[in-house]
Amino acid sequence: MVDSPGAEPLFDRVCLLGVGLIGSSIARIAKQRGGLARTVVAHAKTPATLARVRELGIADIVEEDAAKAVEGADCVIFCVPVGAYAEVMATVAPHLKPGAIVTDVGSTKMSVIRDLGPLMPPGCHLVPAHPMAGTEYSGPDAGFAELFDGRYTIVTPMPGSDPAAVEKVREFWRRCGAMIETLDPATHDKVVAIVSHLPHLLAFTIVSTADDLAEETKEAVLKFAASGFRDFTRIAASDPTMWRDVFLNNREALLEMLARFTEDAQALGRAVRWGQAEFIEDRIRRGRKIRKGLIDRKQA
Amino acid sequence: MVDSPGAEPLFDRVCLLGVGLIGSSIARIAKQRGGLARTVVAHAKTPATLARVRELGIADIVEEDAAKAVEGADCVIFCVPVGAYAEVMATVAPHLKPGAIVTDVGSTKMSVIRDLGPLMPPGCHLVPAHPMAGTEYSGPDAGFAELFDGRYTIVTPMPGSDPAAVEKVREFWRRCGAMIETLDPATHDKVVAIVSHLPHLLAFTIVSTADDLAEETKEAVLKFAASGFRDFTRIAASDPTMWRDVFLNNREALLEMLARFTEDAQALGRAVRWGQAEFIEDRIRRGRKIRKGLIDRKQA
Ligand SMILES: NC(=O)c1ccc[n+]([C@@H]2O[C@H](COP(=O)([O-])OP(=O)(O)OC[C@H]3O[C@@H](n4cnc5c(N)ncnc54)[C@H](OP(=O)(O)O)[C@@H]3O)[C@@H](O)[C@H]2O)c1
Ligand SMILES: NC(=O)c1ccc[n+]([C@@H]2O[C@H](COP(=O)([O-])OP(=O)(O)OC[C@H]3O[C@@H](n4cnc5c(N)ncnc54)[C@H](OP(=O)(O)O)[C@@H]3O)[C@@H](O)[C@H]2O)c1
Repeated sequence: MVDSPGAEPLFDRVCLLGVGLIGSSIARIAKQRGGLARTVVAHAKTPATLARVRELGIADIVEEDAAKAVEGADCVIFCVPVGAYAEVMATVAPHLKPGAIVTDVGSTKMSVIRDLGPLMPPGCHLVPAHPMAGTEYSGPDAGFAELFDGRYTIVTPMPGSDPAAVEKVREFWRRCGAMIETLDPATHDKVVAIVSHLPHLLAFTIVSTADDLAEETKEAVLKFAASGFRDFTRIAASDPTMWRDVFLNNREALLEMLARFTEDAQALGRAVRWGQAEFIEDRIRRGRKIRKGLIDRKQA
Repeated sequence: MVDSPGAEPLFDRVCLLGVGLIGSSIARIAKQRGGLARTVVAHAKTPATLARVRELGIADIVEEDAAKAVEGADCVIFCVPVGAYAEVMATVAPHLKPGAIVTDVGSTKMSVIRDLGPLMPPGCHLVPAHPMAGTEYSGPDAGFAELFDGRYTIVTPMPGSDPAAVEKVREFWRRCGAMIETLDPATHDKVVAIVSHLPHLLAFTIVSTADDLAEETKEAVLKFAASGFRDFTRIAASDPTMWRDVFLNNREALLEMLARFTEDAQALGRAVRWGQAEFIEDRIRRGRKIRKGLIDRKQA
């Protein structure tokens, strides 16, 4: 592993459980920028992915056995869909190196604590995290070293987390190019429910709704998918397994946001039905205000 | 007016009623590319816009009186919000040149026929049209000559429309860089309801929903607006007057699509509540399929 000049690797051995979009981006950063790990071990589920990761040459060791993969690693990073955490943890937990840091990149955080927490060996440190960066692509070919640059990574330590372990995870993400924020896991899940999970649910739904239209209209929809709708289809092209797992593992927060949203959409629909021009304008104005807020924060 | 070499102007005198994003883009094309009109007359409502259009120098004549603006024009193009059509038409109808073509750029088409049709002087020709191109910006500074390049313009002639007038309008948009499609007005309104109007309604709603969250969560939402949500806020930054008018003038089609969408969103929410993994995956897969359809059609 080539280190960037002067950057002493943060960990001796990092194990990536899952080498898709996110895992392979971390692997590429470790290889290209250095400073993360002397040795990167990568594990995935299917022979096809393992072979592809070998071909890409983005990990030092590619290991098909999850239990072996974590052996000796001082940092283990879950990069699998959140629905697979419990199963993978059951396999690896007995093989974790004493004192190892276990962290992850999952899009939900309460579920991670629920699924990993009870199986953590005493002396190991669980520090959940979520890089707020992604694309609609998946798999080891989709990753790239710049993915996290200038994006937030939210770290969600638990009460009693070892401060040194938390700081190491923060530093890890800093070296990946990310800006670090800390939230408690429940707030994290609420915020991502409205910022990310609900928008995905709406995007998946609207393309389904379009798909159910009569053939003639559907043809025209595809033809004129221009501005509004096209953005939705981009979001809607995301990975089914990952998003199924996200929805099922952030159920409460997502359903709460969907309920609020549905009420608001119905209210706007009602205003359209009854010609309540001012109500409609007020709703649209709020959109501009929020957008302006984002621009002021350089988030737009 | 400088004509592009060899392009004989299609019209002698074109009158733009409204010089916002769309109207000022047409004016810029007429000036920069030629081939549209020997003389462009521009009318807007407020002194501020009239003064700005004069300053920009994008029209040959800037006329504050709508009735005078249309005088002698062989083509009059409504580029005002669709809710203003009836009022503007009442003013200009008695002053239309005999044989003039009246066309428009409005985002709804049934309402245009409803509002302009009855006031059309005999011998004048109504040919509604809708360029499927836009941005979230408005006003005369927002326009640019490339806006319609490679985008569809949908022409919605009525039974009995004069074929020569329809062909002139088609040619007008071809010279603006657009690809031309023909739809009947009712189909147009349904298609844009799902392709454009419903996505806007959803975007306005989700930012409103976020705006109603408790202060702490709202702060975090702005901070982490990353991928999904940010796209929605861009759409949601659109002009309140224009969109209020679009919603109110495509009421039936929009409410129908909202009802279908709401059913589908509830069904997906229900699947999340009850852990129906396969139903969720199926919905997400349909998104990918539609996206692929768009990519195959080069619409994505
Ligand atoms: N995509 C985003 O936009 C994004 C953003 C932030 C966070 N995240 C989170 O990051 C995590 C990974 O997402 P991703 O986009 O990188 O997914 P991805 O590209 O689909 O990759 C998933 C990886 O996990 C492996 N995997 C799946 N099930 C496994 C199992 N039971 N045992 C071992 N390996 C398994 C897969 O291996 P095979 O290929 O062999 O199946 C693959 O290498 C998810 O938790 C997601 O919530 C995603
Ligand atoms: N924006 C899009 O994405 C888009 C795309 C396709 C079609 N369209 C359609 O194009 C039309 C114009 O939209 P736009 O985006 O260009 O809007 P815009 O930028 O807001 O411009 C509207 C123009 O109409 C003028 N106007 C408004 N009320 C008027 C009245 N009563 N009498 C005379 N002039 C009046 C305004 O003048 P003042 O500035 O003086 O008020 C302004 O020049 C709308 O019908 C819209 O549905 C829009």
